[in-house]
Amino acid sequence: KGRFVTGGGVGLLEVRGPILESQETIRQIRELKEDGNVKAVVLRVESPGGGVGPSQEIYEEIKKLAGKKKVVVSMGSVAASGGYYIAAPASVIYANPGTITGSIGVLMKFATMEGLMGKIGVKAHTLKSGEFKDVGSPVRPMTDKERAMLQGVIDSTYGQFVKAVAEGRKLPVDDVKTLADGRIYTGEQAHALKLVDRLGNLEDAVAEAGRLAGIKGEPQLIRPSKKKKLLLDMLVEES
Amino acid sequence: KGRFVTGGGVGLLEVRGPILESQETIRQIRELKEDGNVKAVVLRVESPGGGVGPSQEIYEEIKKLAGKKKVVVSMGSVAASGGYYIAAPASVIYANPGTITGSIGVLMKFATMEGLMGKIGVKAHTLKSGEFKDVGSPVRPMTDKERAMLQGVIDSTYGQFVKAVAEGRKLPVDDVKTLADGRIYTGEQAHALKLVDRLGNLEDAVAEAGRLAGIKGEPQLIRPSKKKKLLLDMLVEES
Amino acid sequence: KGRFVTGGGVGLLEVRGPILESQETIRQIRELKEDGNVKAVVLRVESPGGGVGPSQEIYEEIKKLAGKKKVVVSMGSVAASGGYYIAAPASVIYANPGTITGSIGVLMKFATMEGLMGKIGVKAHTLKSGEFKDVGSPVRPMTDKERAMLQGVIDSTYGQFVKAVAEGRKLPVDDVKTLADGRIYTGEQAHALKLVDRLGNLEDAVAEAGRLAGIKGEPQLIRPSKKKKLLLDMLVEES
Amino acid sequence: KGRFVTGGGVGLLEVRGPILESQETIRQIRELKEDGNVKAVVLRVESPGGGVGPSQEIYEEIKKLAGKKKVVVSMGSVAASGGYYIAAPASVIYANPGTITGSIGVLMKFATMEGLMGKIGVKAHTLKSGEFKDVGSPVRPMTDKERAMLQGVIDSTYGQFVKAVAEGRKLPVDDVKTLADGRIYTGEQAHALKLVDRLGNLEDAVAEAGRLAGIKGEPQLIRPSKKKKLLLDMLVEES
Amino acid sequence: KGRFVTGGGVGLLEVRGPILESQETIRQIRELKEDGNVKAVVLRVESPGGGVGPSQEIYEEIKKLAGKKKVVVSMGSVAASGGYYIAAPASVIYANPGTITGSIGVLMKFATMEGLMGKIGVKAHTLKSGEFKDVGSPVRPMTDKERAMLQGVIDSTYGQFVKAVAEGRKLPVDDVKTLADGRIYTGEQAHALKLVDRLGNLEDAVAEAGRLAGIKGEPQLIRPSKKKKLLLDMLVEES
Amino acid sequence: KGRFVTGGGVGLLEVRGPILESQETIRQIRELKEDGNVKAVVLRVESPGGGVGPSQEIYEEIKKLAGKKKVVVSMGSVAASGGYYIAAPASVIYANPGTITGSIGVLMKFATMEGLMGKIGVKAHTLKSGEFKDVGSPVRPMTDKERAMLQGVIDSTYGQFVKAVAEGRKLPVDDVKTLADGRIYTGEQAHALKLVDRLGNLEDAVAEAGRLAGIKGEPQLIRPSKKKKLLLDMLVEES
Amino acid sequence: KGRFVTGGGVGLLEVRGPILESQETIRQIRELKEDGNVKAVVLRVESPGGGVGPSQEIYEEIKKLAGKKKVVVSMGSVAASGGYYIAAPASVIYANPGTITGSIGVLMKFATMEGLMGKIGVKAHTLKSGEFKDVGSPVRPMTDKERAMLQGVIDSTYGQFVKAVAEGRKLPVDDVKTLADGRIYTGEQAHALKLVDRLGNLEDAVAEAGRLAGIKGEPQLIRPSKKKKLLLDMLVEES
Amino acid sequence: KGRFVTGGGVGLLEVRGPILESQETIRQIRELKEDGNVKAVVLRVESPGGGVGPSQEIYEEIKKLAGKKKVVVSMGSVAASGGYYIAAPASVIYANPGTITGSIGVLMKFATMEGLMGKIGVKAHTLKSGEFKDVGSPVRPMTDKERAMLQGVIDSTYGQFVKAVAEGRKLPVDDVKTLADGRIYTGEQAHALKLVDRLGNLEDAVAEAGRLAGIKGEPQLIRPSKKKKLLLDMLVEES
Repeated sequence: KGRFVTGGGVGLLEVRGPILESQETIRQIRELKEDGNVKAVVLRVESPGGGVGPSQEIYEEIKKLAGKKKVVVSMGSVAASGGYYIAAPASVIYANPGTITGSIGVLMKFATMEGLMGKIGVKAHTLKSGEFKDVGSPVRPMTDKERAMLQGVIDSTYGQFVKAVAEGRKLPVDDVKTLADGRIYTGEQAHALKLVDRLGNLEDAVAEAGRLAGIKGEPQLIRPSKKKKLLLDMLVEES
Repeated sequence: KGRFVTGGGVGLLEVRGPILESQETIRQIRELKEDGNVKAVVLRVESPGGGVGPSQEIYEEIKKLAGKKKVVVSMGSVAASGGYYIAAPASVIYANPGTITGSIGVLMKFATMEGLMGKIGVKAHTLKSGEFKDVGSPVRPMTDKERAMLQGVIDSTYGQFVKAVAEGRKLPVDDVKTLADGRIYTGEQAHALKLVDRLGNLEDAVAEAGRLAGIKGEPQLIRPSKKKKLLLDMLVEES
Repeated sequence: KGRFVTGGGVGLLEVRGPILESQETIRQIRELKEDGNVKAVVLRVESPGGGVGPSQEIYEEIKKLAGKKKVVVSMGSVAASGGYYIAAPASVIYANPGTITGSIGVLMKFATMEGLMGKIGVKAHTLKSGEFKDVGSPVRPMTDKERAMLQGVIDSTYGQFVKAVAEGRKLPVDDVKTLADGRIYTGEQAHALKLVDRLGNLEDAVAEAGRLAGIKGEPQLIRPSKKKKLLLDMLVEES
Repeated sequence: KGRFVTGGGVGLLEVRGPILESQETIRQIRELKEDGNVKAVVLRVESPGGGVGPSQEIYEEIKKLAGKKKVVVSMGSVAASGGYYIAAPASVIYANPGTITGSIGVLMKFATMEGLMGKIGVKAHTLKSGEFKDVGSPVRPMTDKERAMLQGVIDSTYGQFVKAVAEGRKLPVDDVKTLADGRIYTGEQAHALKLVDRLGNLEDAVAEAGRLAGIKGEPQLIRPSKKKKLLLDMLVEES
Repeated sequence: KGRFVTGGGVGLLEVRGPILESQETIRQIRELKEDGNVKAVVLRVESPGGGVGPSQEIYEEIKKLAGKKKVVVSMGSVAASGGYYIAAPASVIYANPGTITGSIGVLMKFATMEGLMGKIGVKAHTLKSGEFKDVGSPVRPMTDKERAMLQGVIDSTYGQFVKAVAEGRKLPVDDVKTLADGRIYTGEQAHALKLVDRLGNLEDAVAEAGRLAGIKGEPQLIRPSKKKKLLLDMLVEES
Repeated sequence: KGRFVTGGGVGLLEVRGPILESQETIRQIRELKEDGNVKAVVLRVESPGGGVGPSQEIYEEIKKLAGKKKVVVSMGSVAASGGYYIAAPASVIYANPGTITGSIGVLMKFATMEGLMGKIGVKAHTLKSGEFKDVGSPVRPMTDKERAMLQGVIDSTYGQFVKAVAEGRKLPVDDVKTLADGRIYTGEQAHALKLVDRLGNLEDAVAEAGRLAGIKGEPQLIRPSKKKKLLLDMLVEES
Repeated sequence: KGRFVTGGGVGLLEVRGPILESQETIRQIRELKEDGNVKAVVLRVESPGGGVGPSQEIYEEIKKLAGKKKVVVSMGSVAASGGYYIAAPASVIYANPGTITGSIGVLMKFATMEGLMGKIGVKAHTLKSGEFKDVGSPVRPMTDKERAMLQGVIDSTYGQFVKAVAEGRKLPVDDVKTLADGRIYTGEQAHALKLVDRLGNLEDAVAEAGRLAGIKGEPQLIRPSKKKKLLLDMLVEES
Repeated sequence: KGRFVTGGGVGLLEVRGPILESQETIRQIRELKEDGNVKAVVLRVESPGGGVGPSQEIYEEIKKLAGKKKVVVSMGSVAASGGYYIAAPASVIYANPGTITGSIGVLMKFATMEGLMGKIGVKAHTLKSGEFKDVGSPVRPMTDKERAMLQGVIDSTYGQFVKAVAEGRKLPVDDVKTLADGRIYTGEQAHALKLVDRLGNLEDAVAEAGRLAGIKGEPQLIRPSKKKKLLLDMLVEES
């Protein structure tokens, strides 16, 4: 599948949908990093974000990759929150004028239903070993102490996010904090604010990656291999 | 499947249903652009529109295609909003007299259910790092500041849409703005307003494309190849 | 399947159920039009109508067919609205005495549920670029301006329908307008009003088509070929 | 399957369940009509009726068949309304004493739910080209003019039904109208009213058909062939 | 499957569950009637009854069978209503002491929901050609005239049932009418009332049938053949 | 499957779950009764009872079996009502100390919902030929006459049950009636009341059966054959 | 599968989930009891208990096994109620410190819904032969006499449970009664109360069993064979 | 699959999702412990915790493993409660800065619905042998004595958890108790509190394990083998 490349090509890494898992993406990053034929990498992002953990793990590996080869990002319909986090270390970021991006920040949501339980006549009984062991419990109101404890967790994570954007985009931390109040931007707006470098689609990003890598003419695309499962394995493995 | 064409034919590109994804359509556009046998292309649109991102990405590639070969659009039952956006760069646009078209503009919809939650006795607790991080949250009323921020996103995108129509249809931007208040038109009405060039069905559009390409007699239709998956691949790929 | 015909036969084209799509029917019309063995065509209609777009596209092709070969319509249980539209260009129309036909006209239906939303405590928030961009929105009342804009769309389409019937049935436009207030007719009633030429079933229509084509004895029926998918194709095509 | 018949046999045609479609039954009637081995036909009816259109189309073909061979009807548990309509042209009608038959007449049912919509807070908006285009609409009350228009459709169809029974049973039209107020009869009652000729089950009807055809001894039964689909066809046809 | 029988055996006919269809049972009765090896027949009934039509059709064929060979009935858990009707012509009837039998009579059930429709705000509109055409309609109250008309249908059928029991059990019609008020009996009670001849299970009934047929020793059981469908047929028949 | 037995073994008959059908169990009893290698039979009961009819039919055959070979019962978790009925004729009954047994008696349950129908606005209309034809109807209250008629059916069946227990356990009928008020017993309690002979599990019952049959050492278990369906039969039989 | 063992090994018997059936577990116990290679047995319990009957039947067989070979119990997450019952006869009982155990006692649960039935307007009618025949009926309140009768059943079973624990754990019956008020214990607590001998996991239990059996080094594990069904059998057996 | 390793590698053990079962994980630990090629082990934790029993059983085996080879933990998105418990014995713990960890403690949740049952009119009846046998019952309020009994179970388990953390992390028990009030920490916060040793992702943990084991260059990863089921076994085993 296009593995026979002469003179080098551009690697294409895709991150689509909610970012809930990092292992498979990291495997692909490492493959592109070590493949001598890959002269530069385009990271296509089509994601509204996801969990903090996997976003950070992918971010770390993109940073290591960017230390070795040029990385160009192409944003699709949406590349927001964690979808922006992982794009931060790139050399150049492309977006469509109408791309939804930004949404930099951290969010936790809880719902409590003590009112509903009272209405339908169900009572909860909780036994626990420490004051916070049932934090986030849906069966009673949230206390001020819990709220303060959780806000501390959010502030810790938010600081990590801002630092990553400031480093990647080479912007002062305070400038990033001003932009990073969670608001969303079109690609056009983000471009004006320096969160995006240029307006253009995936084809444009690939062309730019080719230029940065010194490839002449239209660059060949190199996709990471898929994880394969042999039919035989499927038959003998535990279902 | 009709790949052996002598003397050139007319490529047929179909965009059906909501436009939520651009990659497969762009692949087909590029195939028709590079196929020497394809002398002109008919773009058949049967779509009420879709996302801004994929519509813009397809629009960009249609524009590049129209720079190289004649593109004739045939509108089916409905070709509105994003379905009109992608048609804008064509040389000639055909519609049935009863086609539903127009609906030029941008729309965002939210619903909040703080009232419902109060009724059923569920309370939401949100912890966040910035004022706008939970914009669009269904568990509380929308604030005026959020509304203003989102209207800015819409205005930015609307300007992109109007510019694309004005350029494609060669109409003054202000004229387009007058038409582009979101209203729908029949093909007949759109024809009177110059949003459509002629009334006719797909057969008529194909004939016109043949004429524009200088093909004599009834032109042969050339469809882009389908993405194939070999049976063997299906067995060995990850499920 | 009866493809070896000597001396010519009668083509049988069937349109069943709601008319939502035109491409497959048009493919069959063109096949019958170009098949030299087909000397006349019976169009069997069993449909309550459907969308304006596909009805018009089929109507156009029936008209072109009728310019080349005799077309006889046989109406089944119901051939109303769009089901009558496509029958209009035929040479002769047959109906059962109890067939439901007529219903000539255009209809749009909307429902708004602002009341329901108030009851259950859900609030809608819409942001848009133009006054009419959310026309037909179910979350607020319809305005008078919207109603007027939509009635314009209906009147435009209604005029197209009336014109098609008048031309096909060779009746004055004003006479058709009198009949075309949306009411339904039995075949017997429609016969009296000249919307139908004769009472009889499919067998009678086939016999008449044979007579018109100058075929002696009982005419052979020729059905259009079915679109086939080879087993092999099913295995290699994208699922 | 009993296709090798010497000296002739009795054809067995079965109509079971609601009569919603006529094509397959008509195909079977024509097969029995043209099969030289079939000397008479038993029509077994086990049906509460159905649509006007298919009942009339089957009725027409039974009448043509009865002009060529003796037709004996055997009524099962129920042969009412359209199930009686198609039996009318037979030479002899058999019923069990407990068979439910009769129900001669025409019926249309509508339900409107403007009250329900008011209760749940949903409002309907209809735009139309003519007064009757949305007749039968469930979202508003039915008007007197609509009611009169629909009663006209029913009266037209009822007259067709009465005429068919009068002709088939050789009864004066006025006598039939007296019986045809929609009431049901047992086979025993219908026998007294001359709607049925004799009491007896399917075996008795077959024996009678044999007698009428001059067959000696117990007549052999000949069923119409089933429409077959070859395995190969199933694999290559469009799914 | 026990088809090689020397010296004759006892046929076993089973009727299980609601009696909704008569054709398959009648086919089996005829097979046992014509099989020379079958010297007597045991009819095993395990049924709460069913429709009037199929019960009468089976009854007729059992009566014909009983005119040619001895028929012994064995009642299982329940043999009531139509399940008793078909047993009536037998020479000897066996029941378990705890069998539920009787329930001689006819029943029609309707439900009308004009009240419910008023509550939920749905209104029905019926157009009809005769007063009784919508008898049993669930959307309005039942009238006295309808009730009288339907009671006539029930009385007609009840008379047929009583006559069948009186003839089969050789009891005066008036005696049967006294028992036939719909009440149920245990086998023990029915025995005292002469509706059952002896108490015993299926094994006892088979032994008695053997004795009546003059078979020595334990009689061999002969079941009717099953209707078979060849695999090949399943593949080529219409699905 | 242990069919090659030398010197004789113990048959194992299992009755599990609700007793709704008797034919298959009776087939197994007869097989064990006629198999010369089976010197005694253990009947394992794991059932809360079931219908009167099948319990009586199995009871009859167990009684016949017990007249020919020793029968030892082993009760599992529960062997109550009909599950006790069929155990009554055994030579020895074993139960676990915690087995649930007893529940001797007969029960009928009805529910009427005239109240619910009034609430939701549905009205029932019943037409019948005799006072009791709709006994047990859920749409009206039960009358005293109906209640008396049904209690007669229960008393008749109860007398049969008590008689079977008295005979099988060799207890005076009046003693059984005292125990048979429907109450449940543990195996331990039932042992004290002579409804059970010994406490022990299935292994103990098998050992006892071996002893009673004069088998030396641990007896071999012989299970009845399963009813088999050949693959070929499955393909050719009616589905 | 480890069946070739030299010098003996340790059998591993697993009881997981609710104890609802005893036959398969007893089959495995007997296999381990008779296998000469099995020098000691570890019984792994992961069960919250279950029915009285199957728990007692397994308990009896474990007791017989413990009379022949050393049995060491390993408790997993939970081994309570019937899960403790079957462990009682072991030589040594291991538990994790956090295992949930205890819950010694017997429990019956009923729910009556006479209130609900009144609310929805459904009335129950019960006909029975004795006062207690419908004990536990959900359609009426429970009487004091029924409550007393059922408590007798519970007390009888509870005495059997206490006796089994006292014997197995070699504790005075009165001491057991003090512990056996249904309360649960952690493994740590149960250890202090002598219901458990040592704290440790499955690996520790296996090592101990090896020591008790005099096996040197790490003992080999021997699992009972699984009940197999041959493919061929699956095809020919009754579905 | 990477089984041919020269010079030793790093074992990779993964624990994902809720910890509900210990057997499979323990099998993998033992395999890595005994494999001579595995010089150190990385334990990747992606789990919010789970049951006490399986967490303790895995903890015990990790402790034994850590006594023999270096164990390095890598925490993913979440490694809290039981997910922290099993990590405690490691030599070094890595976490992402945004990892959710902590939540040290024990929790039991019950819900009672006596109120709901009163509302819908259902009454519960419980018969039991001891005061606590139905502890946690949802059909009545929880008593103070029950609450105290259950708190004792929690305190016993909590002590075991604190002791495990103190030993593993070499912290004073009182320090752990201060941290172990159930609160959650980000990796960054946990690092400051010494619950985590270093910040980094899985790649960093693997590199560290390689260093600790004295492996030069990038260490090879060795995964435990998967439990396999042969196709043949699947066919012959009981379904």
